[in-house]
Amino acid sequence: MIADPSGTLEPAPVIILVEPQMAENVGMAARAMANFGLSQMRLVAPRDGWPRKGAHQAASGAAHILDAAPVFDDVRAAIADLNLVLATSARPRGQMKRVLGPQEALVQVRGRIRDGQRVGILFGRERTGLENEEVSLCDLLVTFPADPAFASLNLAQAVLLVAYEWRRSEAAPAAPLRAGAAPATRAALLSFLDHLETALEGADYYPPDKAEIMKRNMRDIVHRMALSDQDLRSLRGALRALAGRPPGG
Amino acid sequence: MIADPSGTLEPAPVIILVEPQMAENVGMAARAMANFGLSQMRLVAPRDGWPRKGAHQAASGAAHILDAAPVFDDVRAAIADLNLVLATSARPRGQMKRVLGPQEALVQVRGRIRDGQRVGILFGRERTGLENEEVSLCDLLVTFPADPAFASLNLAQAVLLVAYEWRRSEAAPAAPLRAGAAPATRAALLSFLDHLETALEGADYYPPDKAEIMKRNMRDIVHRMALSDQDLRSLRGALRALAGRPPGG
Repeated sequence: MIADPSGTLEPAPVIILVEPQMAENVGMAARAMANFGLSQMRLVAPRDGWPRKGAHQAASGAAHILDAAPVFDDVRAAIADLNLVLATSARPRGQMKRVLGPQEALVQVRGRIRDGQRVGILFGRERTGLENEEVSLCDLLVTFPADPAFASLNLAQAVLLVAYEWRRSEAAPAAPLRAGAAPATRAALLSFLDHLETALEGADYYPPDKAEIMKRNMRDIVHRMALSDQDLRSLRGALRALAGRPPGG
Repeated sequence: MIADPSGTLEPAPVIILVEPQMAENVGMAARAMANFGLSQMRLVAPRDGWPRKGAHQAASGAAHILDAAPVFDDVRAAIADLNLVLATSARPRGQMKRVLGPQEALVQVRGRIRDGQRVGILFGRERTGLENEEVSLCDLLVTFPADPAFASLNLAQAVLLVAYEWRRSEAAPAAPLRAGAAPATRAALLSFLDHLETALEGADYYPPDKAEIMKRNMRDIVHRMALSDQDLRSLRGALRALAGRPPGG
């Protein structure tokens, strides 16, 4: 079960903390990552700025993870280079996302990483979690099998469970070779979605009171398609052709 | 995977924190227990006394677990009524104990509890873990599949992993019916071991420089036997008979 220590250098998922509020939680999350062989952390707009006093002490020897963590302004920027993005959540939410437990989620992650893909896992704010808009940028939802009457995990505890299942997934059998090309990066996919939404706005597609939910549903559909770069090029061409046509033409 | 909330009332293992140093860790351990449906905590001689400021805040809504936690002077007293005791440890240690990962350990625990037995799981001090003497009182050792280069888990994190695997073990198939009687309680077993050691001391069995290790080895052997109350009565009778004989007689 226990791999050699050099295993920490092999490709692994990126842990992305979105607007963390408490420096101690960021430090403890780093320690939890180090416990189970993860080392890449990204921070999105920590509430009280960064770096913060208290984080290093809580990291208890995993300061190297904090020191190497880049800070991003928003989730889109933090996930731009990734091929697969998972959102963690205390509840399944209403979104049309595939929902996995931590074990099956990390087996999936292990398989994608063995395929050479880059994978990130999002963790939301201590009090309020991830916003729907942020979840809609992700491919899969990870929920923890917690007691529904007491489902709110501490941030570092949620990171620990993911890191633990990452470690355990080493023993998982290799996923069957996937047919087809690797999915496009998140930046390419989001860029296409932006184009699509702009074109649809231009075509007065969205009723004003339903624009947000309709965009989110469309994003969910597009995410489920697992589009490759070649797919995106084709769709972008089709969109240009359509959006260039006169209304009703 | 998620059971009904009333599941917290069903029999479950007792979480025993041995000389915890930080009140925050005790509170966070309570929260981790509540997340995955555990509710019975016992404390052994908290370093700075008990109750302590900071614990309730860290428990974040799981204060009922802290308020119900009895405090004991030592491990022996804390485990006296239990039929199966597990020790958690960052490393396998040199002791002759069966070593299990958290998943297989909690599947075992689930089986014993389904059999009507009482089970406890020991967690050591933040800095130094459990003493060898304390581990020797236990049946099984649980270790976490952590990176050997960074194997020290925060106390509440270790409790979380155990609670998580407890929750997941709900889905485990029922263990095959065990043959034979339930194991004796820890108090009965330790009382027998005390008698045995006193008798052996009276017979000058122990070389002075090896008494401690010889006692520990003997305890390991006796623990592995999974003695029932009836077994213990027989052995106690045999011991009385032997110890009553004159030296060399």
